[in-house]
Amino acid sequence: MVIDDPAPRDAERRRRDALERLEKDVDAWVSTVNPDGSPCLVPLSFVWHGGALLMSTKASRPTARNLRTGGRVRVALGHTRDVVLIDARAEVVPSDRLPDAEGDAFVGKLGWDPRGRGAWVFLRLLPERLLAWREENELADRELMRDGVWVVPG
Amino acid sequence: MVIDDPAPRDAERRRRDALERLEKDVDAWVSTVNPDGSPCLVPLSFVWHGGALLMSTKASRPTARNLRTGGRVRVALGHTRDVVLIDARAEVVPSDRLPDAEGDAFVGKLGWDPRGRGAWVFLRLLPERLLAWREENELADRELMRDGVWVVPG
Repeated sequence: MVIDDPAPRDAERRRRDALERLEKDVDAWVSTVNPDGSPCLVPLSFVWHGGALLMSTKASRPTARNLRTGGRVRVALGHTRDVVLIDARAEVVPSDRLPDAEGDAFVGKLGWDPRGRGAWVFLRLLPERLLAWREENELADRELMRDGVWVVPG
Repeated sequence: MVIDDPAPRDAERRRRDALERLEKDVDAWVSTVNPDGSPCLVPLSFVWHGGALLMSTKASRPTARNLRTGGRVRVALGHTRDVVLIDARAEVVPSDRLPDAEGDAFVGKLGWDPRGRGAWVFLRLLPERLLAWREENELADRELMRDGVWVVPG
């Protein structure tokens, strides 16, 4: 991939760009840890709502099982040369327990409705840390959120 | 993303497509497990050589530290709608211990040479399991390699 290696974006611009990805992107890579200590990584669709990423997967799938009692997850949005990485705390919500506003946001973006399907659960991922960078020259200031709080002005 | 939901590819075609990604793609998402049990996920460039993915990163970075004594890694190539997932066993090779053929392959594809740079190490990822799918209709037969052996004809 050829990139012109443009000047690094300032922090405000990176925050805007990261939020735009959260609004517009459909899929994310979701990494968790299996019970045997090996890494799990799968793609899942999401909607960004109320400051959280909302996803749905089958309760029997490794990602849901790994997060059953809560737990930590790292999510990657976007491209390997336009990175948005999010460390989040996960909550698993039974498919019949999701608040309407979140369910409506999910259906509105992703076009299907897992609510009430017993085999499915929702994952609510609450960001604690967010990193964003494109090329090497943006690595130094890549941390845009820490302990759930944006460290750059909006 | 709108996809025409074409007929599922047969296993041979998927294997060819996966090998093409291994040859041509530059970056992969690499997931490991941190010492505290949380997931780590970063993008790294790679070259496919001798049946392994070869990468380089700083020895001080979490991915290298997580794999210092070997360990398991899951790698995702490609797009979230054209998935190639690889579970691999990792070997960490000091930057001055890489066989010439691997070093030359690395430099030939990625255009820089970490050999002899003390702060850097190579990661040699030996695939044990490979999954590939595009849409839902390919999920059933997504396992193309098991225990390091292709389970579909080449």
